Amino acid sequence: MKSAFRNAYLTLCRDSINPNPTSSFPCLLNLLPAISTSPSRSPFPGAHRNKALHSSLFASPCSTSMAGGEANAPEPCSSLEKQFAAFRCQLDDSGNIRERIRVVVMEIESASRLMQASVLLVHQSKPIPEVLEKAKAQIGELKELYSRLADVLNACPEQYYRYHGDWRSETQTVVSQLAFIHWLETGALLLHAEAEEILGLKSSEFGLDIEDYLIGICFLSNEMPRYVVNKVTAGDYDCPRKVLNFMTDLHASFRMLNLRNDFLRKKFDGMKYDLRKVEEVYYDVKIRGLAPNGESIGDEGIQGQS
Amino acid sequence: MKSAFRNAYLTLCRDSINPNPTSSFPCLLNLLPAISTSPSRSPFPGAHRNKALHSSLFASPCSTSMAGGEANAPEPCSSLEKQFAAFRCQLDDSGNIRERIRVVVMEIESASRLMQASVLLVHQSKPIPEVLEKAKAQIGELKELYSRLADVLNACPEQYYRYHGDWRSETQTVVSQLAFIHWLETGALLLHAEAEEILGLKSSEFGLDIEDYLIGICFLSNEMPRYVVNKVTAGDYDCPRKVLNFMTDLHASFRMLNLRNDFLRKKFDGMKYDLRKVEEVYYDVKIRGLAPNGESIGDEGIQGQS
Amino acid sequence: MKSAFRNAYLTLCRDSINPNPTSSFPCLLNLLPAISTSPSRSPFPGAHRNKALHSSLFASPCSTSMAGGEANAPEPCSSLEKQFAAFRCQLDDSGNIRERIRVVVMEIESASRLMQASVLLVHQSKPIPEVLEKAKAQIGELKELYSRLADVLNACPEQYYRYHGDWRSETQTVVSQLAFIHWLETGALLLHAEAEEILGLKSSEFGLDIEDYLIGICFLSNEMPRYVVNKVTAGDYDCPRKVLNFMTDLHASFRMLNLRNDFLRKKFDGMKYDLRKVEEVYYDVKIRGLAPNGESIGDEGIQGQS
Amino acid sequence: MKSAFRNAYLTLCRDSINPNPTSSFPCLLNLLPAISTSPSRSPFPGAHRNKALHSSLFASPCSTSMAGGEANAPEPCSSLEKQFAAFRCQLDDSGNIRERIRVVVMEIESASRLMQASVLLVHQSKPIPEVLEKAKAQIGELKELYSRLADVLNACPEQYYRYHGDWRSETQTVVSQLAFIHWLETGALLLHAEAEEILGLKSSEFGLDIEDYLIGICFLSNEMPRYVVNKVTAGDYDCPRKVLNFMTDLHASFRMLNLRNDFLRKKFDGMKYDLRKVEEVYYDVKIRGLAPNGESIGDEGIQGQS
Repeated sequence: MKSAFRNAYLTLCRDSINPNPTSSFPCLLNLLPAISTSPSRSPFPGAHRNKALHSSLFASPCSTSMAGGEANAPEPCSSLEKQFAAFRCQLDDSGNIRERIRVVVMEIESASRLMQASVLLVHQSKPIPEVLEKAKAQIGELKELYSRLADVLNACPEQYYRYHGDWRSETQTVVSQLAFIHWLETGALLLHAEAEEILGLKSSEFGLDIEDYLIGICFLSNEMPRYVVNKVTAGDYDCPRKVLNFMTDLHASFRMLNLRNDFLRKKFDGMKYDLRKVEEVYYDVKIRGLAPNGESIGDEGIQGQS
Repeated sequence: MKSAFRNAYLTLCRDSINPNPTSSFPCLLNLLPAISTSPSRSPFPGAHRNKALHSSLFASPCSTSMAGGEANAPEPCSSLEKQFAAFRCQLDDSGNIRERIRVVVMEIESASRLMQASVLLVHQSKPIPEVLEKAKAQIGELKELYSRLADVLNACPEQYYRYHGDWRSETQTVVSQLAFIHWLETGALLLHAEAEEILGLKSSEFGLDIEDYLIGICFLSNEMPRYVVNKVTAGDYDCPRKVLNFMTDLHASFRMLNLRNDFLRKKFDGMKYDLRKVEEVYYDVKIRGLAPNGESIGDEGIQGQS
Repeated sequence: MKSAFRNAYLTLCRDSINPNPTSSFPCLLNLLPAISTSPSRSPFPGAHRNKALHSSLFASPCSTSMAGGEANAPEPCSSLEKQFAAFRCQLDDSGNIRERIRVVVMEIESASRLMQASVLLVHQSKPIPEVLEKAKAQIGELKELYSRLADVLNACPEQYYRYHGDWRSETQTVVSQLAFIHWLETGALLLHAEAEEILGLKSSEFGLDIEDYLIGICFLSNEMPRYVVNKVTAGDYDCPRKVLNFMTDLHASFRMLNLRNDFLRKKFDGMKYDLRKVEEVYYDVKIRGLAPNGESIGDEGIQGQS
Repeated sequence: MKSAFRNAYLTLCRDSINPNPTSSFPCLLNLLPAISTSPSRSPFPGAHRNKALHSSLFASPCSTSMAGGEANAPEPCSSLEKQFAAFRCQLDDSGNIRERIRVVVMEIESASRLMQASVLLVHQSKPIPEVLEKAKAQIGELKELYSRLADVLNACPEQYYRYHGDWRSETQTVVSQLAFIHWLETGALLLHAEAEEILGLKSSEFGLDIEDYLIGICFLSNEMPRYVVNKVTAGDYDCPRKVLNFMTDLHASFRMLNLRNDFLRKKFDGMKYDLRKVEEVYYDVKIRGLAPNGESIGDEGIQGQS
């Protein structure tokens, strides 16, 4: 029986990681009505589906307590064993989901590393259009990876935040790079909706968490002092003013938010040092009379100037 | 305009903590169709509602970039300001939800502390029925508190796991107490579904997380060595055998689970010390010939014996 | 009796969070004379009120020690249970007070964040009067919030310092902002008494702690280097001299104080770096012959110059 | 002038640490009406007294801003200098109070160390009456020290909690020793009111903080496992039962309290290990049939038995 149980268990679990699960239990669908209340009642719809299947697979008259004398050799159909068999399936399901997330996230990380390698060339004042072209080459792949990630998550609806921790830091990095690219092109902040569009998250259940977006923007801010220093070194004396305007608005916008005491708050508190550093670079340029006098006409983006 | 914005913001946020939010935007509902795609596309449906409202409140032809010369005086309708106004509302919404969760969780903690105070009297071999009666007096209040918690969470569907961390440890404690009470009554393990039923979670969207249930059961296991020591002290020499059977099955059941390297895993690893301690007490009893010889007939629960 | 006790407890505690508590014990006031000595003798007058009520509620001839054979079933009127029932009420009272403080403090933090968002616009050389107008818009709300905070504290006289830690850091930030605004308007330091007046603390028992005021002033000092850098960048070459005079006096004044080894001391030690930075900016301006030669006539405040 | 100012300052400060201050400013009392609003308006009544005196000492027509050209050599009567002179006095006042507290607290610590040295002899089963006599010899001195401490605090009314941190840990230790002595004599818990009486705190403004009392009781609990082990070693096989009864009630009483997440909470969480250890000692005694069979009649305290 143990092995029979194992087989049943394995069947279930092989099925239950199928992204489109209902279709994979044709012969069992007729069992579902019996437990029709389950799906609505738990945070694990997917899990409950399996529990339902187990209940039915192991349905049997007996329901002995486990504390009986021979309890340490529990009969196959004890409700205890049934429950833990269901748990095993459910934990394995979520384990499998985490594993599949991990695989995609590793690829996301690798793609974003390539993108970063290209973007960072701007610090050596490579011609921006060329830099951007290289960097944007990765966007297609990222989009594809996020749609794969979305597929994994869509297989377990309502559990976005259950697994959120598994991809958030990589996503924050991706956002910071996309925002840097966007700023280099347009001189404007990449908006949350624009980031979702670039990553193809618009149409899916799978969205970009706002705090991840905001943290990504903080990372962008951390990049700016270095950028400004390198641009001035390369003789672009108008850059500090533009960056300062951008960061000032950004900082002011963040100030509107009531952040709780968490990582985002810590990142935001750090932004003021980026701002101060950029102000000091602007100061150096101005006091030496290097800044182009007369504020430049409204920006059509950085790209134009460089 | 700033103040106009502030007012709009305040209105929204005052509303957005309304448990029944749609009803609180009578005048704005007709704006929703305009952004009908939003709700389905983000992890924050509730938040999106506000974003929608903002979009409509600030609807205007212009959509200027923020890096313009006068960027540091962003015109009221800049997409940047609109976005952050929406974020502020969304973050305040989730802040309000956390606040409301916090209030309920504090009451849950207090009720479970009272329940524990009663349950622990079994260690002084108070007659179990009396102890249980006292302890179970709290269950009604807990049930009511969890339905309040469920109401808070149902107001933001699909975000159970976003806020999960805010109530899980208190819930694990509650589970361990309910499971102890149940074991004292029946000699059997309180099942996940039974725990959900006791806490009235069956009918709601708001379920009992399986890992929280399992951690609660580990806490139950931690209580057993102490219980057995006290029962033997009080002259119940058959108790160690029963507890040992129970824990052996429990430990075996947990062994079936593939746990990842997290808190649950750590708690489970600790169970073996509880088991060992109970075995040692059983040994003390046996070697002194104190244990009733001949295994007792199948249990009708501990209650019967005491 | 237990439940009777619980009810009594609940009644008391429901009342004890009533901002106007005496009025909420009409039926019990006649019990107070019985314990007329209590109020004067403890650091918890409010708490004593409840203790008094408990003493009276549970008044009874018996006063048995707890170590009797049946001690583990303490009779309802044991002095031990009475004491802990009173403690529970007193701890819940102070817990409730902390809760109410927390709520107000969160609003103070949010209002001060908005004020800061406006004040910081001076770094972008916005016309100061306009900036100040915006910033001062928050003062009314802050005043109202501090009067609410004072009400909470006045409900528990003599316990200002018991809860002080719960609002001090937010208050230090508020002071630094008010002092910055005041300096921008008058070129003078906001005095402690002036800060109290602005926040409407004059008439209440609830004052502004001197160390909080001083720490707030240290935060103001931290803001100055950035201010001076930005003003010079914007072409105000006389600003460094004025700021330097201000900070030199401020630093000299702090030097008079015997500070013990605490946070205030650490903040003060940091002031010298702000001073040094401002001196360096003044130096840059002077050495380039940018400073207006001939010290300007006595200040009628910064506002005039900008 | 500077030195004149210093003298004035010194006079003030010498006076202002006088425990009975009003009497020490005969010639200045008539100045007080001028600032009659001050006393009610600040958390530092004592401090305000000095501020008042300063205001009067430095009263003068001029009230120049500090940002004037010669601001870095401020004329004596600048409101800035006046304020900091007052602050210096107030900070020195509180510094002096802390110093005086420190002196008394050191003596309290030394007296309690002596008391502890005697009490701990019970672990070597010295005859309890003799042990107690020695230990109680210190109580008189402690009482005198606490009345000195009360005098220091009464000199700055309403500021008990401002300085609380300076004596609380020593007081917690004293409470734990008094409670141990009391328990050895009576087998009952020393109540808060009894502790206040022993330390002569009843008649003064200066009371025993409830949390300090409770933490002291937790320390008492920590002592019990060791006590019980040593008593059994010395052949007192009935001791574990008595201690267990005492600790069980104590633990149950603490359970009633809603403790916030602070040191007291941590100490209480630790109590269960003391309890468990005592239960195990009782178990060892019982299972070996060493415990006197038949529960002893209601306790007239441990002393009787030993």
